[in-house]
Amino acid sequence: MKPWRSNQHRPLLTPMSIIAGRLSVQFGAHYLERQQGGRGVLLGGVPGVRPAHVAILGGGVVGTEAAKMAVGLGARVQLVDINVEQLGYLETLFGSRVELLYSSQPEIQRVVPDADLVVGAVLVPGRRPPTLVSRALVAQMRAGSVIVDVAVDQGGCIETMQPTSHSHPTYETEGVLHYGVPNMPGAVPWTATQALNNSTLPYVQQLAQHGLKALAMDESLAAGLNVRDGQLVHPAVQQVFPELAAPTKSAG
Amino acid sequence: MKPWRSNQHRPLLTPMSIIAGRLSVQFGAHYLERQQGGRGVLLGGVPGVRPAHVAILGGGVVGTEAAKMAVGLGARVQLVDINVEQLGYLETLFGSRVELLYSSQPEIQRVVPDADLVVGAVLVPGRRPPTLVSRALVAQMRAGSVIVDVAVDQGGCIETMQPTSHSHPTYETEGVLHYGVPNMPGAVPWTATQALNNSTLPYVQQLAQHGLKALAMDESLAAGLNVRDGQLVHPAVQQVFPELAAPTKSAG
Amino acid sequence: MKPWRSNQHRPLLTPMSIIAGRLSVQFGAHYLERQQGGRGVLLGGVPGVRPAHVAILGGGVVGTEAAKMAVGLGARVQLVDINVEQLGYLETLFGSRVELLYSSQPEIQRVVPDADLVVGAVLVPGRRPPTLVSRALVAQMRAGSVIVDVAVDQGGCIETMQPTSHSHPTYETEGVLHYGVPNMPGAVPWTATQALNNSTLPYVQQLAQHGLKALAMDESLAAGLNVRDGQLVHPAVQQVFPELAAPTKSAG
Amino acid sequence: MKPWRSNQHRPLLTPMSIIAGRLSVQFGAHYLERQQGGRGVLLGGVPGVRPAHVAILGGGVVGTEAAKMAVGLGARVQLVDINVEQLGYLETLFGSRVELLYSSQPEIQRVVPDADLVVGAVLVPGRRPPTLVSRALVAQMRAGSVIVDVAVDQGGCIETMQPTSHSHPTYETEGVLHYGVPNMPGAVPWTATQALNNSTLPYVQQLAQHGLKALAMDESLAAGLNVRDGQLVHPAVQQVFPELAAPTKSAG
Amino acid sequence: MKPWRSNQHRPLLTPMSIIAGRLSVQFGAHYLERQQGGRGVLLGGVPGVRPAHVAILGGGVVGTEAAKMAVGLGARVQLVDINVEQLGYLETLFGSRVELLYSSQPEIQRVVPDADLVVGAVLVPGRRPPTLVSRALVAQMRAGSVIVDVAVDQGGCIETMQPTSHSHPTYETEGVLHYGVPNMPGAVPWTATQALNNSTLPYVQQLAQHGLKALAMDESLAAGLNVRDGQLVHPAVQQVFPELAAPTKSAG
Amino acid sequence: MKPWRSNQHRPLLTPMSIIAGRLSVQFGAHYLERQQGGRGVLLGGVPGVRPAHVAILGGGVVGTEAAKMAVGLGARVQLVDINVEQLGYLETLFGSRVELLYSSQPEIQRVVPDADLVVGAVLVPGRRPPTLVSRALVAQMRAGSVIVDVAVDQGGCIETMQPTSHSHPTYETEGVLHYGVPNMPGAVPWTATQALNNSTLPYVQQLAQHGLKALAMDESLAAGLNVRDGQLVHPAVQQVFPELAAPTKSAG
Repeated sequence: MKPWRSNQHRPLLTPMSIIAGRLSVQFGAHYLERQQGGRGVLLGGVPGVRPAHVAILGGGVVGTEAAKMAVGLGARVQLVDINVEQLGYLETLFGSRVELLYSSQPEIQRVVPDADLVVGAVLVPGRRPPTLVSRALVAQMRAGSVIVDVAVDQGGCIETMQPTSHSHPTYETEGVLHYGVPNMPGAVPWTATQALNNSTLPYVQQLAQHGLKALAMDESLAAGLNVRDGQLVHPAVQQVFPELAAPTKSAG
Repeated sequence: MKPWRSNQHRPLLTPMSIIAGRLSVQFGAHYLERQQGGRGVLLGGVPGVRPAHVAILGGGVVGTEAAKMAVGLGARVQLVDINVEQLGYLETLFGSRVELLYSSQPEIQRVVPDADLVVGAVLVPGRRPPTLVSRALVAQMRAGSVIVDVAVDQGGCIETMQPTSHSHPTYETEGVLHYGVPNMPGAVPWTATQALNNSTLPYVQQLAQHGLKALAMDESLAAGLNVRDGQLVHPAVQQVFPELAAPTKSAG
Repeated sequence: MKPWRSNQHRPLLTPMSIIAGRLSVQFGAHYLERQQGGRGVLLGGVPGVRPAHVAILGGGVVGTEAAKMAVGLGARVQLVDINVEQLGYLETLFGSRVELLYSSQPEIQRVVPDADLVVGAVLVPGRRPPTLVSRALVAQMRAGSVIVDVAVDQGGCIETMQPTSHSHPTYETEGVLHYGVPNMPGAVPWTATQALNNSTLPYVQQLAQHGLKALAMDESLAAGLNVRDGQLVHPAVQQVFPELAAPTKSAG
Repeated sequence: MKPWRSNQHRPLLTPMSIIAGRLSVQFGAHYLERQQGGRGVLLGGVPGVRPAHVAILGGGVVGTEAAKMAVGLGARVQLVDINVEQLGYLETLFGSRVELLYSSQPEIQRVVPDADLVVGAVLVPGRRPPTLVSRALVAQMRAGSVIVDVAVDQGGCIETMQPTSHSHPTYETEGVLHYGVPNMPGAVPWTATQALNNSTLPYVQQLAQHGLKALAMDESLAAGLNVRDGQLVHPAVQQVFPELAAPTKSAG
Repeated sequence: MKPWRSNQHRPLLTPMSIIAGRLSVQFGAHYLERQQGGRGVLLGGVPGVRPAHVAILGGGVVGTEAAKMAVGLGARVQLVDINVEQLGYLETLFGSRVELLYSSQPEIQRVVPDADLVVGAVLVPGRRPPTLVSRALVAQMRAGSVIVDVAVDQGGCIETMQPTSHSHPTYETEGVLHYGVPNMPGAVPWTATQALNNSTLPYVQQLAQHGLKALAMDESLAAGLNVRDGQLVHPAVQQVFPELAAPTKSAG
Repeated sequence: MKPWRSNQHRPLLTPMSIIAGRLSVQFGAHYLERQQGGRGVLLGGVPGVRPAHVAILGGGVVGTEAAKMAVGLGARVQLVDINVEQLGYLETLFGSRVELLYSSQPEIQRVVPDADLVVGAVLVPGRRPPTLVSRALVAQMRAGSVIVDVAVDQGGCIETMQPTSHSHPTYETEGVLHYGVPNMPGAVPWTATQALNNSTLPYVQQLAQHGLKALAMDESLAAGLNVRDGQLVHPAVQQVFPELAAPTKSAG
């Protein structure tokens, strides 16, 4: 069983991914309301009326949490991912309550046009995710459908998606509402702040107890060091500001 | 909440309906195997591959039990019924695990062509059920799909369905396998016999203890009397054999 | 087991109650976001951070559906009702996933101040519901908490609640956001219209087939007649417009 | 928690194991029907009548999937395995819905004679599985019970089991029906083919993009090479055809 | 669907039945501990070791609640009842998690000797329940097994059961621990008192608001009147104290 | 996903931890009974009456199993742990059925005073666990509440907890019942013995087949060697009895 794919190289971001995944469906449900410009569809339907159809692209932390919320609200849920083992893990989590589909262009072209809500949840650490949904495919969606892309700050996986802001969170293109706020967890700061605290506290405690020696004691803490003795030491940041880089690559 | 619609006027038949509903999906899964002439689809799919789509027409005892088995095997399940209250009850039973749709010709025409397995579960006590699925609609189904009609002995709700037998249980029409054995519970006599015993035993015990007086003590028992003093007394049977009827309608 | 309390005297309104109950939590989650003026709490929390606390007043159709959605989103849910049998029924539905409490002022005074979201779901057919939550109690809630009252058009059960509109859905009083749009299902017309169609269609079909005779065939249909031969015949409407009333009470 | 034991050294076979495990119960249910020579038992029984008893030998991928289906159809399920950690994992999956028993001869001798359906799911990679069920034990089963052995092509774990074929899938020995078709997934080629495609596609894409270099880039791909420059290079195949082996063991 | 059988003629006792049913398994688990004289079996077992087997006689309120707790603790649970409709209802509640068996002497003789814990939950309003388990059958149980009879104050359904007290709650007969405290809810007065309050409060409020007129307004309240104008008026109590009876049967 | 934290360095103790965790709630429920000196609270309450509140300190094997039982009996359950990843894993196990809280003194001071039952489940291998609950905090609990500490033999995490025995299992301090029997699984020897057998059997079989060579074949077996050639060789035991130590550290 492939486990819950934590953002292994970015542990502090995992709680933010959980929050963003959960909010993506909350936002989607909201923008499907008629007054927000949506189709006027209730995610769970009512007995006798079809529930909304939610398509989730990507089955990592974000996609898994989005699927939990969509299931909890009673929607019909499909999730596509390129990793068969991860799909196997998700089946142990959701049983047959979520249709788990292998990601391919033909499959995406079957799934997206029929969806009321598409959640983009494709994250490729350190790289722009591939464009899975073209403008032509968006144009096939029903008018008033909604797309939420959680990875918009890294480019997103939807061709028509642009970053938006909490003050103007959506725009309409090809008849479809697009939600592309990069900092979703900012909507629930009470929850997000505590979650971040819980994840960072152990590192803060190490520093408070051991000072600089803590870097030697914990490799992952050392890897987070950006500036030492007035010079940039983090390789990724050095690349951006080469003139500030320390002469020797001391922490990597 | 509309309760589980028992065959109220035919209490002894309820366990047979339960068995038939459960077997309908077991038979359907079997005939979807390639060696039986079916499409070669596994009801529950595998992670990454779409599960089969089961459409159940009717949400009474038979349809409810069929839905339980289809859900248990991991299929995608849709159930249509004409009674909104019954659909509400089924939602308390299945949550959003089964799509519960109001029965109408447009809905049936959307649901049936996409189904791998159609279960006919429409029972109108004492009457022929309406034809919900026309030959033209059957012809739109994928080749190798399967139809099982539980009410075939009362005419069934599928235009192309004919009664078959346990020795030759299926035939193919319009590219679709048809299963129409009227006495489904005959496939599992160990279970069916005990179920019938449990339902009939209270009546047998009344007769054993009180003899003919039992008829006066229990209206429903009396209503089942067919022959008394050598003459037919049951109104429905009298209609068929008027020459054997008792002169006075003594029990009804 | 006390069944799902349908609006027995108003069957056509049951689907609207289902929709309103489900939307009450969707709206509540939305207004708890920081940008909407709420506390910035995610209903389901994240592992390690307390989930939001949802208090539902009333366990009929509206309250039951609100509880389903709140559970589905991962909140901690408490529901109070005055009917012990209904609470027993709800336990068969939710197990111990929802805390089911007998409604009393002391209990309400324990539950409400600790809630992030209060859903008013008290409906007394034809009467104004009792005021369960006083202004003083609202003032004890945390700043940025949210109240949604589904029965606001009949007076509601929250002292500080006033009807609002889809264009200006909320206002703030005592530091708490109040949502009081009377016609909630108007937010999801695609779903709501079909649900109403499904419930009214049988009556329309009776009229189409039998004309005025349908009134004689179905007592519940006859009870809905408002105007006959140019005169008001419905008792409740007659009371409002006595000058238009028919001389004889012909349909009641 | 011991994870889902994938066929780690044979990743492409995992989906086949899933399919075989699921089909084993579907076949078992079918052959328990009276017309197929079985006991005439419905797996899930009916309320008041004992469900069938399914005993699963082995708790790897095959046994886990068999248990899911048997649970889904309502049977009483017992599963034995020799690995305590795997049993612990299965409890997180099934809760107490499946009785999880440590494999020992005394336990197997208690479990098997009482079973209506025995599923052999013992796979020891590259070796013949041990014989867990002797002919004498089979003879203690009730007449008309069914045994399905998923590992029959590697010898199986049932003394009386012989390979059969899709055209003659069963035979009867000691009063018990034996099903021993080695290529079970052949019954559902639509599902099986897509599952295989999903698992093999990443390797095909590597070859298509990088040609022979792909072997250097992916150790697991290289390990699958059988013939290079006209000579056998795979050690296992070399053992079978030593005269065709390359002089140097280039890929292993 | 036969609903949850409330003690319809004794509504105030329903919460006491719920409590007694839940406690019966809590007591059973306790007395199965070695230090209490029991077999030393943990109800839920551990992965690899058989769970305890709980047999519940009777599927009304008491038996249903006992089954919930036994399932919650992970035991294997069988429940027998004489009412097929009630068994059908219990299946909607428990799915196949509880084996639901039709009550007959042969079935009871199969179930009881194999049980670690037998819960007697047979209540026949106003009558002594039948003896379902004879001394001979008790003697077949394993040494250190436990029997709890909830209806012991009405005679119980176990031949060897005698009423005991909270101070000496158990005794041993035929090697089996017997628990027969009539007033089980007395063990949890905090919970029981509030439950009784919730059930009786509506009647108290009627009396407080309307005084004696409340009797005329509510038939069920009037039926509970015992003494009026210094004379016994309740028929059942009159039978016991005929000399105190009112001359006319004023309230019945 | 952080997996089920097995006692990795003490594999044979895992089943004992499972049993102790499950028993901790069984004991807690028992001592909450009024006759045992407890508050008289039923863990699951009844519909309309608040369930008991169970607070579990620590989310390893013991805490996880305690949570399963508390949920199974219908209590409100909160669990605190210091490991965010483990809390994430527990959410996949319990969904939102258990409130999962990050362990901190402020959180513990909110959780403990409101609890009816506190389960101490903090195990730090080879070290005394930290004192999480001070005497002052215990004094804030309601009279008649119960504390069970599973790790009392290693010092426990409750300031007021002392080891007790199966013959005198509890004492009262600050109005709260304390249960501190170190060898909990001794209460269910039938289950515990088999569980231990299942875990130790593979090692016994290795020794039986290979004699002393088994030590060379299995590192974990070798690490368990205490005495060789009449001399102590296990480092931990050598520290306690240095005069009996072998001159060379042969097995570690």
